[in-house]
Amino acid sequence: MADNSFGQLFSFTTFGESHGPGIGCVVDGVPPRLPLSESLIQPYLDRRKPGQNRFVTQRREADEVEILSGVFEGMTTGTPVAMLIRNTDQRSKDYGEIARQFRPGHADFTYQEKYGIRDYRGGGRSSARETASRVAAGAIADLALKQFLGSDFRIRGGVVQIGPHAIDRSRLDWDNVDNNPFFCPDPVAADQWEGFLDSVRKAGSSAGAILEIVADGVPAGLGQPIYGKLDSELAAAMMTINAVKGVEIGGGFALSAMDGADAGDEMRAGDQGPEFQSNNNGGVLGGISTGQQLVVRVAIKPTSSILTPRKSVDLEGQDVDVVTKGRHDPCVGIRGVPVAEAMMAITLLDALMRHHAQCGLGDPA
Amino acid sequence: MADNSFGQLFSFTTFGESHGPGIGCVVDGVPPRLPLSESLIQPYLDRRKPGQNRFVTQRREADEVEILSGVFEGMTTGTPVAMLIRNTDQRSKDYGEIARQFRPGHADFTYQEKYGIRDYRGGGRSSARETASRVAAGAIADLALKQFLGSDFRIRGGVVQIGPHAIDRSRLDWDNVDNNPFFCPDPVAADQWEGFLDSVRKAGSSAGAILEIVADGVPAGLGQPIYGKLDSELAAAMMTINAVKGVEIGGGFALSAMDGADAGDEMRAGDQGPEFQSNNNGGVLGGISTGQQLVVRVAIKPTSSILTPRKSVDLEGQDVDVVTKGRHDPCVGIRGVPVAEAMMAITLLDALMRHHAQCGLGDPA
Amino acid sequence: MADNSFGQLFSFTTFGESHGPGIGCVVDGVPPRLPLSESLIQPYLDRRKPGQNRFVTQRREADEVEILSGVFEGMTTGTPVAMLIRNTDQRSKDYGEIARQFRPGHADFTYQEKYGIRDYRGGGRSSARETASRVAAGAIADLALKQFLGSDFRIRGGVVQIGPHAIDRSRLDWDNVDNNPFFCPDPVAADQWEGFLDSVRKAGSSAGAILEIVADGVPAGLGQPIYGKLDSELAAAMMTINAVKGVEIGGGFALSAMDGADAGDEMRAGDQGPEFQSNNNGGVLGGISTGQQLVVRVAIKPTSSILTPRKSVDLEGQDVDVVTKGRHDPCVGIRGVPVAEAMMAITLLDALMRHHAQCGLGDPA
Amino acid sequence: MADNSFGQLFSFTTFGESHGPGIGCVVDGVPPRLPLSESLIQPYLDRRKPGQNRFVTQRREADEVEILSGVFEGMTTGTPVAMLIRNTDQRSKDYGEIARQFRPGHADFTYQEKYGIRDYRGGGRSSARETASRVAAGAIADLALKQFLGSDFRIRGGVVQIGPHAIDRSRLDWDNVDNNPFFCPDPVAADQWEGFLDSVRKAGSSAGAILEIVADGVPAGLGQPIYGKLDSELAAAMMTINAVKGVEIGGGFALSAMDGADAGDEMRAGDQGPEFQSNNNGGVLGGISTGQQLVVRVAIKPTSSILTPRKSVDLEGQDVDVVTKGRHDPCVGIRGVPVAEAMMAITLLDALMRHHAQCGLGDPA
Repeated sequence: MADNSFGQLFSFTTFGESHGPGIGCVVDGVPPRLPLSESLIQPYLDRRKPGQNRFVTQRREADEVEILSGVFEGMTTGTPVAMLIRNTDQRSKDYGEIARQFRPGHADFTYQEKYGIRDYRGGGRSSARETASRVAAGAIADLALKQFLGSDFRIRGGVVQIGPHAIDRSRLDWDNVDNNPFFCPDPVAADQWEGFLDSVRKAGSSAGAILEIVADGVPAGLGQPIYGKLDSELAAAMMTINAVKGVEIGGGFALSAMDGADAGDEMRAGDQGPEFQSNNNGGVLGGISTGQQLVVRVAIKPTSSILTPRKSVDLEGQDVDVVTKGRHDPCVGIRGVPVAEAMMAITLLDALMRHHAQCGLGDPA
Repeated sequence: MADNSFGQLFSFTTFGESHGPGIGCVVDGVPPRLPLSESLIQPYLDRRKPGQNRFVTQRREADEVEILSGVFEGMTTGTPVAMLIRNTDQRSKDYGEIARQFRPGHADFTYQEKYGIRDYRGGGRSSARETASRVAAGAIADLALKQFLGSDFRIRGGVVQIGPHAIDRSRLDWDNVDNNPFFCPDPVAADQWEGFLDSVRKAGSSAGAILEIVADGVPAGLGQPIYGKLDSELAAAMMTINAVKGVEIGGGFALSAMDGADAGDEMRAGDQGPEFQSNNNGGVLGGISTGQQLVVRVAIKPTSSILTPRKSVDLEGQDVDVVTKGRHDPCVGIRGVPVAEAMMAITLLDALMRHHAQCGLGDPA
Repeated sequence: MADNSFGQLFSFTTFGESHGPGIGCVVDGVPPRLPLSESLIQPYLDRRKPGQNRFVTQRREADEVEILSGVFEGMTTGTPVAMLIRNTDQRSKDYGEIARQFRPGHADFTYQEKYGIRDYRGGGRSSARETASRVAAGAIADLALKQFLGSDFRIRGGVVQIGPHAIDRSRLDWDNVDNNPFFCPDPVAADQWEGFLDSVRKAGSSAGAILEIVADGVPAGLGQPIYGKLDSELAAAMMTINAVKGVEIGGGFALSAMDGADAGDEMRAGDQGPEFQSNNNGGVLGGISTGQQLVVRVAIKPTSSILTPRKSVDLEGQDVDVVTKGRHDPCVGIRGVPVAEAMMAITLLDALMRHHAQCGLGDPA
Repeated sequence: MADNSFGQLFSFTTFGESHGPGIGCVVDGVPPRLPLSESLIQPYLDRRKPGQNRFVTQRREADEVEILSGVFEGMTTGTPVAMLIRNTDQRSKDYGEIARQFRPGHADFTYQEKYGIRDYRGGGRSSARETASRVAAGAIADLALKQFLGSDFRIRGGVVQIGPHAIDRSRLDWDNVDNNPFFCPDPVAADQWEGFLDSVRKAGSSAGAILEIVADGVPAGLGQPIYGKLDSELAAAMMTINAVKGVEIGGGFALSAMDGADAGDEMRAGDQGPEFQSNNNGGVLGGISTGQQLVVRVAIKPTSSILTPRKSVDLEGQDVDVVTKGRHDPCVGIRGVPVAEAMMAITLLDALMRHHAQCGLGDPA
């Protein structure tokens, strides 16, 4: 698999830098005869779009997607869907002074070490701007999954912790995520976070976050053991998102501390077949979906671009102090939600297709 | 990539079930002219071998590996190295009664849902026995890395938490991991865990664990952004290990709660080039290694096979109570250490080769 | 994809050298619940087995395959099927004198150049012995295709030219291929070849061949354009077989000389849908199967191991004259037939699965 | 590997239809710090551009490439290079009448069978217009190879047969290919072909061709046996080109008729190391380059779009007679030359990188 591609059967390849002509992706393996148009994809991009409130970067990108191929008379044809988003609001001058400096916590140093060259403007390829391409690809996956799995299928995501402030899970209500600027499923926490993030921003600092993404209506049987396990693919998918430093499935790290008698999810006969009595495993057993809700949590580190001066070195290896101006998210985790949702959709459609290929050819016996 | 393969350039494919004729793997992309023999691989397998103390399964497998190909006169030839480990101590009768039952927390239900058939003997393909193959493949990777990266390179791993009992990091000493049956780098914690695990075992239950795997001597520049990021590959690798439910890099989930001014690792000029002042990012920035210590932590759930009766259903969907007899690890996390080390070695050699292919052809300018 | 693997969804990885402990393969992506056993695979291997008549190598290998995994109670489980064939009749002494010489036409020189080391015994990895593994993998593919495509599906192959002597196509009768030692579909040609090959053998030389492999009952729609075209995959598959120097589909090279008005296969309405009036395209248009007979021809060069002395150099670059003793096929093309059939089966099953994954999820509209 | 991608390490993914907004590709694995700009790529595209003489389609596409990413200040950065070529001269009305008809010899029928939908305008995805993307990707590969392999490295190609008229190989002169509209290396044949093709065009028909592509300066050792053999990759590459029905390496099909004593290329010590006395194997032995000239020949069928009425059926399965108007190449093989050269460059760079990854890490011993 190429380095800038993800997925085996439903796959996409992204391209583009923060301050180049544009970004985009080529989505391959798209099932044919799906209704598709820019207007169906745009709402997904709009959720991620910068400049929408004071808690995200004030860079104002239209993020208008153009479909270049793979759609004919409003339907997918089974050929690659290429999508292009032109960059329109690059202020390269903001970045001029860091052309020779390595911003702490950023990929400046490592890109330079790896390639011996880097497009330093806005982080170049390592900018979170790349994630718009994934959201566009994820939109196709989500639309396809809704077609194939029906109305029971639904991916939802939100921020369940900002900085040290977690939601109260007794108030978790996914319908609340669109009522506040944080994709927060707990209305009370959302109010508290507003003050917290304002103070972080005023202090010239930033905050991390923990995201939770869930999928309902996922059939049992998806995931290809041993090295194409559904949870392994999901972990890989999430870890490719900028600033992500951890992934857990279901109970995750907390499960390590539980007693074995409590951890395993018991089952009982139900009206519609076996029913699980709990979901500590987050909908995955042995790398294969159980039919329960799929639950993934993602740890995102604080935004590295902050106004507070930071110690670093420059290209010549000399000590410098770096202050990152420009327009940045005080908490990049927030806009990570639609990106993580997109990655889950892509991973699930790919898993569905892989499962179908091996196990859906009919009963040989 | 095939479902049972891992790695792009240095890759391996495993096969085998817990109670079939044997397990093994084919390792492809092995650099030529590496010294290799069974006696060089066996020590890696011996670290993972069952039956060595009362805290791991009493199944007694010789786990003797036979190299079937790819080695000539003690050296690798660049052709695939196939390795076979015959199963010798299968007691299939232990498992007869669960042929028609789904053990909670196990993959019994999901394999049946996915494939419509399963080899139920000892968990079949989903048994942790498969991990011996990875350890054999990992041995080759580790030996190769030591050749190419020199004596500075070293992977070490241990258990840093069993059940709710974490080590005291001020006592962390990697040299201590071989002095106790838990791969515990904290001698005091190791003593305490002994009592804890005995009580867990006597209660017919089990415990989870958190592993930490570190690599020193990793050069800067490894990892292929955006979808071949080193941390994404490591997360995928770890998540394929049985019972793993979470992965974090460096500060991980705790990093989400930190202030942005503390989280980013500052740099200063040092005698040998830039020096990082901290390692919250665990040796990876933007998916590329920084040259610092690589730090990965892995959450492992409690062993699902326990003596305590558990509610479940059978193949016909009828309620049953499952008691898992047989010989099981009270904490599967312990024997996960050499497996996680192996997966790190494999991931690193693959990343080294991928980096070298793209960036090591010489300076075109 | 690893170097020693073939196929995307139905894939296999082979291992082993001519004179090592054994050869074999791991087949991944096997559909579950297929009846499978050694006895079902052995007949495919027996067709390729050496030592059966005077026109093939007199090396006598039992070529008995052992299934190591992936089958439970006579059925595939969806997990990898590993197969092992032990080498039993290696006479390494025959090859001792060429340990330091490069046999003309063989891979001795190139393996040495590439890897800086080679297992020279019997050609090591480059020996045609490797193809037994493919035949075993192909057997599974063929059995699966027969299950999924029904009794109309059938792959047949034969030798249509040996040295300069082609069959008379007016006498082509696939039922004849098992009546002579050449897999020749023309009984008259088979008789003539006997004398020709005897003279070639007595002269201490060898002959090339052209194979033709056809598949009936292939549904329209298989093949993934643009870079997974069915004919591209078939060409790649055939070109991996030892000594193959050319591949053509349908009319192939002769088609280049035809007039455009004759070359395109016309269609007319038939009782069961559109019917093609000719098959110059060999059952593939735009990389996708048409539903017609699939026709592939394969050019195989003369056996390079001959008794006639040949000029060469040794490891030190000194001039030497090489005489290849040992037991060799006067025409390796003959035993290539079951191998080419196997590669076609593998390619077709993979194509079927890939098509099904993308286009078989149901009608989204 | 995705269906619309080619290459393992140096890889590209193409998108676009003949009459959509545009076509293009994303090239991944590009080595960093290569000089690159539109002006370096354009000359490669210009060789393939339509409308340049009366023997190729009169469609007039500017074929101007825009680099969207991966280049910074005139140098590659190691990130994906996306390239876009807008379609400018689509005359969709020409194709309106065949919206419901299957043109014989084209992919109309098979795309419809496979996907249940097709973009019929100008052949949509199956149009040879797609090959412009490959030429752009191939330009990068060729430029890179020249950097890494030096001035000895050179790929050249031409048409060695049009219809039944082959060149006289005693007159073969690669320097002649740019002196005539046929990329013909034989000046006398070029003159003859002019009259032949004019008569073919006037008859409303078309002609096939055989191409020959050679590469000098290829080091020994490239190619990854067994399933990544250099000749297998080349065959796959060539077979993905529109209208290709056959591929041969070196002596190819003619080699099958040779005597074994003549076929194997002998060697003798030379001033600069071993020297081959002939090149029947076309520079590849055992799937690995020998260091000799690499020789590939490609059979291309006659253009399927001709003015002569042809029998076919329509979407409803009714008999129709198809006359293909529009602007078409009387011999598509001609413009196939730069495409085949591009595919060879891509295949070679990929092989170089794969070889380097496995065997270029240094001497472990």
